[in-house]
Amino acid sequence: MKLLVINPNISASVSQLIHDEAVRSASADTRIEVVTARAGVAYIETRFEAMLGAHAAAQLAAEHVAEADAVIVAAFGDPGLTALREVLPCPVTGLTEAALASACLLGQRFSIVAISQRIRAWYAETVHAYRLDGRLASIRGLDEPLADIGNVQGNQGERLVQLAERCVREDGADVIVLAGAPLAGLARSIAGRIPVPVVDGVSSAVRHAETLVRMGAGRARAGSFAAPPAKAHQGLSDEVAALLALVQRQ
Amino acid sequence: MKLLVINPNISASVSQLIHDEAVRSASADTRIEVVTARAGVAYIETRFEAMLGAHAAAQLAAEHVAEADAVIVAAFGDPGLTALREVLPCPVTGLTEAALASACLLGQRFSIVAISQRIRAWYAETVHAYRLDGRLASIRGLDEPLADIGNVQGNQGERLVQLAERCVREDGADVIVLAGAPLAGLARSIAGRIPVPVVDGVSSAVRHAETLVRMGAGRARAGSFAAPPAKAHQGLSDEVAALLALVQRQ
Amino acid sequence: MKLLVINPNISASVSQLIHDEAVRSASADTRIEVVTARAGVAYIETRFEAMLGAHAAAQLAAEHVAEADAVIVAAFGDPGLTALREVLPCPVTGLTEAALASACLLGQRFSIVAISQRIRAWYAETVHAYRLDGRLASIRGLDEPLADIGNVQGNQGERLVQLAERCVREDGADVIVLAGAPLAGLARSIAGRIPVPVVDGVSSAVRHAETLVRMGAGRARAGSFAAPPAKAHQGLSDEVAALLALVQRQ
Amino acid sequence: MKLLVINPNISASVSQLIHDEAVRSASADTRIEVVTARAGVAYIETRFEAMLGAHAAAQLAAEHVAEADAVIVAAFGDPGLTALREVLPCPVTGLTEAALASACLLGQRFSIVAISQRIRAWYAETVHAYRLDGRLASIRGLDEPLADIGNVQGNQGERLVQLAERCVREDGADVIVLAGAPLAGLARSIAGRIPVPVVDGVSSAVRHAETLVRMGAGRARAGSFAAPPAKAHQGLSDEVAALLALVQRQ
Amino acid sequence: MKLLVINPNISASVSQLIHDEAVRSASADTRIEVVTARAGVAYIETRFEAMLGAHAAAQLAAEHVAEADAVIVAAFGDPGLTALREVLPCPVTGLTEAALASACLLGQRFSIVAISQRIRAWYAETVHAYRLDGRLASIRGLDEPLADIGNVQGNQGERLVQLAERCVREDGADVIVLAGAPLAGLARSIAGRIPVPVVDGVSSAVRHAETLVRMGAGRARAGSFAAPPAKAHQGLSDEVAALLALVQRQ
Amino acid sequence: MKLLVINPNISASVSQLIHDEAVRSASADTRIEVVTARAGVAYIETRFEAMLGAHAAAQLAAEHVAEADAVIVAAFGDPGLTALREVLPCPVTGLTEAALASACLLGQRFSIVAISQRIRAWYAETVHAYRLDGRLASIRGLDEPLADIGNVQGNQGERLVQLAERCVREDGADVIVLAGAPLAGLARSIAGRIPVPVVDGVSSAVRHAETLVRMGAGRARAGSFAAPPAKAHQGLSDEVAALLALVQRQ
Repeated sequence: MKLLVINPNISASVSQLIHDEAVRSASADTRIEVVTARAGVAYIETRFEAMLGAHAAAQLAAEHVAEADAVIVAAFGDPGLTALREVLPCPVTGLTEAALASACLLGQRFSIVAISQRIRAWYAETVHAYRLDGRLASIRGLDEPLADIGNVQGNQGERLVQLAERCVREDGADVIVLAGAPLAGLARSIAGRIPVPVVDGVSSAVRHAETLVRMGAGRARAGSFAAPPAKAHQGLSDEVAALLALVQRQ
Repeated sequence: MKLLVINPNISASVSQLIHDEAVRSASADTRIEVVTARAGVAYIETRFEAMLGAHAAAQLAAEHVAEADAVIVAAFGDPGLTALREVLPCPVTGLTEAALASACLLGQRFSIVAISQRIRAWYAETVHAYRLDGRLASIRGLDEPLADIGNVQGNQGERLVQLAERCVREDGADVIVLAGAPLAGLARSIAGRIPVPVVDGVSSAVRHAETLVRMGAGRARAGSFAAPPAKAHQGLSDEVAALLALVQRQ
Repeated sequence: MKLLVINPNISASVSQLIHDEAVRSASADTRIEVVTARAGVAYIETRFEAMLGAHAAAQLAAEHVAEADAVIVAAFGDPGLTALREVLPCPVTGLTEAALASACLLGQRFSIVAISQRIRAWYAETVHAYRLDGRLASIRGLDEPLADIGNVQGNQGERLVQLAERCVREDGADVIVLAGAPLAGLARSIAGRIPVPVVDGVSSAVRHAETLVRMGAGRARAGSFAAPPAKAHQGLSDEVAALLALVQRQ
Repeated sequence: MKLLVINPNISASVSQLIHDEAVRSASADTRIEVVTARAGVAYIETRFEAMLGAHAAAQLAAEHVAEADAVIVAAFGDPGLTALREVLPCPVTGLTEAALASACLLGQRFSIVAISQRIRAWYAETVHAYRLDGRLASIRGLDEPLADIGNVQGNQGERLVQLAERCVREDGADVIVLAGAPLAGLARSIAGRIPVPVVDGVSSAVRHAETLVRMGAGRARAGSFAAPPAKAHQGLSDEVAALLALVQRQ
Repeated sequence: MKLLVINPNISASVSQLIHDEAVRSASADTRIEVVTARAGVAYIETRFEAMLGAHAAAQLAAEHVAEADAVIVAAFGDPGLTALREVLPCPVTGLTEAALASACLLGQRFSIVAISQRIRAWYAETVHAYRLDGRLASIRGLDEPLADIGNVQGNQGERLVQLAERCVREDGADVIVLAGAPLAGLARSIAGRIPVPVVDGVSSAVRHAETLVRMGAGRARAGSFAAPPAKAHQGLSDEVAALLALVQRQ
Repeated sequence: MKLLVINPNISASVSQLIHDEAVRSASADTRIEVVTARAGVAYIETRFEAMLGAHAAAQLAAEHVAEADAVIVAAFGDPGLTALREVLPCPVTGLTEAALASACLLGQRFSIVAISQRIRAWYAETVHAYRLDGRLASIRGLDEPLADIGNVQGNQGERLVQLAERCVREDGADVIVLAGAPLAGLARSIAGRIPVPVVDGVSSAVRHAETLVRMGAGRARAGSFAAPPAKAHQGLSDEVAALLALVQRQ
């Protein structure tokens, strides 16, 4: 099985974190390909940045999906995920969707621990779009600027653990979701220090993607995730145009 | 006052409909500039198409906002609206947001009459993102393919009136929202035939944009609509990069 | 255009504040008539007081609506608004409804800053009745008795600014709504000191009322805002009885 | 124990129906006094009519509460109920609130069977104000004009039974609420013909009022049902002014 | 009238508290029989303990219901209540359901004061299952281990009063629900010290059970509370098997 | 890896269906042990039957968990699942929870196709308890009595396909969940005939259980899924008592 993992941001250091955790999480016979956005920002905290990331993710998906059995959008907030689900020939998931699915299998209410204050509104809207507000205990975030997006875990690890503990003690969280690709792999190292299950987006996405492939559930030929109806378009990249044509033929 | 009206789709015929209704609705001293996407599809029915439209709208906004007092995203579903609100120096609204604001001032529950069945899921998710589900009576759509996106009103006008009547009689709608730029101006011509107030997206957006400008409410310097924090980026168009730099300096 | 602005309370000093802000907000060719309740209380904080205000507003509307193009119920909480929408021949809005519509066009979540602690429950129920709970970040109120309802802004202005700042910083508000007719005009003077857009009820109501008149959306002949079915009544004032008869004939 | 039962409408024939069912339902040592509005309409179907009824109910309560141990607002929709709870020295309930409490003790989801189509929106808003939407299966109403409000049961009894059956079969109702004072006593006569428990507003209100008196829960001295803060007022009836003064002293 | 009151826990001391408050609350001609679980835990704080309690309650109900006019499940959280409603020939209620019904008749928002921190999640899920989240202001609990489940009131009475006061002042509660059979009777002794109405589960359940019997609403023959469809079973106790057979014949 | 799969019902034929689909779904190195309730009913349609199943599942779990890496409660509605999560030393999931997690990874809104009309209320309450109502498009069920619970697929396969098609066409489902252990494996055989992804509870539970084991998320030592606090108990089976003691020591 081949999983295409798309970093919709431009940070190669984060792509490396994603890659390492994806490989650690995947089954022995699963191959991981991580691709990185050519256009966009270092990491996504806002709706505008997410819009940029969604567009970049679509371009990367169109370029690389041909050999993939499933696709992962590897930024929290899942930029472009539901859009891609309409047009990709294979299953697609994202870090938030997958982490929340894991969290829902481990407890009733989860908290999200995030890398900044600003990012909280965007995450809250993502959870709302998934209609999982009823499971959300809280979203807490770091409140200092990030010196190095590729080393948040090293610089802020202790503070992240403290935030997680407060989510359990003060907010009633049954599960902690460590949010954001820059935290990929952190759950593994701090799990023992948090008194409830801790969930990581990358490993959740890799495992659930494997499951979706093995379930063979197929893609929608009707409903809101069927291919967009064929209609005039212009100015799309060759790869995106080809992807649309492909899925509309199916 | 100058309003920049962005058609995030490529249909010049729809831009003309938008322009005509915008001019009819605007105050005497308001100038209207309608710009049309260079990249995208003929009209938006799905999440993927909306993602394309959001990206195109951002590029057009970045190119043209300098002279505008307010910006309107002129496609139902408001592709890119909340993203643009973070980065534009002036107020911005969209057809759905503005039509729903009008509807909420005219009654308790509104129905949306739309140009296709497929579009209903996307509209429902838009209403949900605005957390206005509690005001939504129903979404009904035409169920035939559209022969000509620039002439839906002519070809399907009677059918749209019938859908509106069913929304009132069967779904309990207090107000009808005619959805989609291709229906711009229709409310004006059929209002007398529907037994409840009928709302149009373009005229609502023009009037509410004028109000926002006159209120002088200013843009956010804190909270989730403040400018995105400055961070590394690459591959953005010159205009988008300049827009980001501008708003981050403010 | 003539706007009838109804103060459902007995405070002439508040009527003056309402009048001044209404005139400042209105278009050049809009005339403003403010009328003040003959029966009722100084200002509304509770459900019982709102019931008194609703009845007084209906009487004033019945007396004065003949020459009006639109009616505004000028107390936060909108006493009697949805009742009046059933029976008035022209559009009607209220301070809360209008301020919330403005807020929804400026951001995702708003906070309400109010003149007392006690008033918070009544405002929360108003927001709930409008099914806008999902947009509400918080309601904060002054916690000292009001020495002079006509000079809350002068006596408590600094404290109101501080409350607004806490709404942004602690509650995640994207927009601040300054609630209550006694605060009419305050948004104008403190806007620069609050880091997010600030909304005023009176100016919102005046501008949206103008928009409703210009949209010409008409009144409902069916649905829940059609005229009440004709039936026996007794003991109503002549003006209210005449209003009922008028709307039932339409 | 003495229960004051207020018909906020002007129909003496409905007051008689209310009286008869109240007496049938009350404990042996409970006295029932039914009073009828002097100002208002024959029966309430809309928000405007409910506003009239609320005002009339407050006047009647102020006149008659002195000797009462509890008060019942005897119209479905509970006009003025939460307002009166702020100012009356004794417990107060209403037909809807009480019927819904009974229904919630008998099953998970209830349907409301009502006397007209028009009344449905008003009932839906009442259920929403009580935040019991999650328990509501449906609201169904008669669709013919009522020839005689005092004899709906006789004229439309069969049709009401059929509506109730559809609520069970098609809407998943566990309990049927027969709504509106004109149906007082009907539950008693048709209970055997409906395959789920049937609830009547008058008998529910009488029994729950007795319970509230016996519980001796007392009235609120803090929170949103404490007496309205003392403040200037004018133009109120002597009885209402005296009631306000009384409760503000307590 | 005979009420069967089931303590689904094994604590005889709590059964005595339940008995005493039930007798104090009941009408003069109502007989009270309290039975105590033979299998289970001392008191319920978690979902697992509630599951044990539900099973024990069903066994006790099957053994003793023959002579009862109504049944009360006398533990907060109502273990087994909705299950028993399907199979018992008479009305059944529980401490939470009944207390919440009382609270809803006394105010808009209630807080629950509970005997431990741990129990809060289970209570929150119970309120959610009853779809009364919209009425819930808060749940606060004692934070020390209980030395003696039969004497919580004596040991922790002051602390419980303080928690109730905080619910009113900080959480906006209109009504306080004292939760848990170990607090049976406490409302009676502290009512004067709390500035809002205080509700007790046992007295609420006794009074509402009496009302349900007197209303004669009957049991469901259709819908989700009809008897479970007859089907193969094995290993059930003789009493439970007989109860199933009885209700399936009706 | 060893998965303990608990059929909380007494039907050996259904246990066989569960076993076969579990083996088909599991990874090569996963062993499956299916155990069948000794006490209970043939299949669960109601709250009372679910209560019986929960108790039986707890007993079986306590007897067999020692050698298991994860536990699956193999009846739709997940009887006892959240209770078991508090006391089992390893991950536990259920058919509904797991199927809904799969569905949420495949689309936005799912419909549940079930084996009877009666079962719909119980499933709706299960979805509500998981706070996934916002994702639920509809629940449709067979409307004929089941001749043979072990051969529903053979007898009713065509009818189930038709129900699924209606969920897509009329209810807007993006994903179909085939509900109930008696339908284990059906998704596999009819997937090609339904135009949207089809999800099976048993295979979802097996795959997600494998994921939970591999994630090593650990069990809660705090929060609402920590072990129940130690307290007096009596009358529990030796196995359940031992399980409680074990988890309380951890």
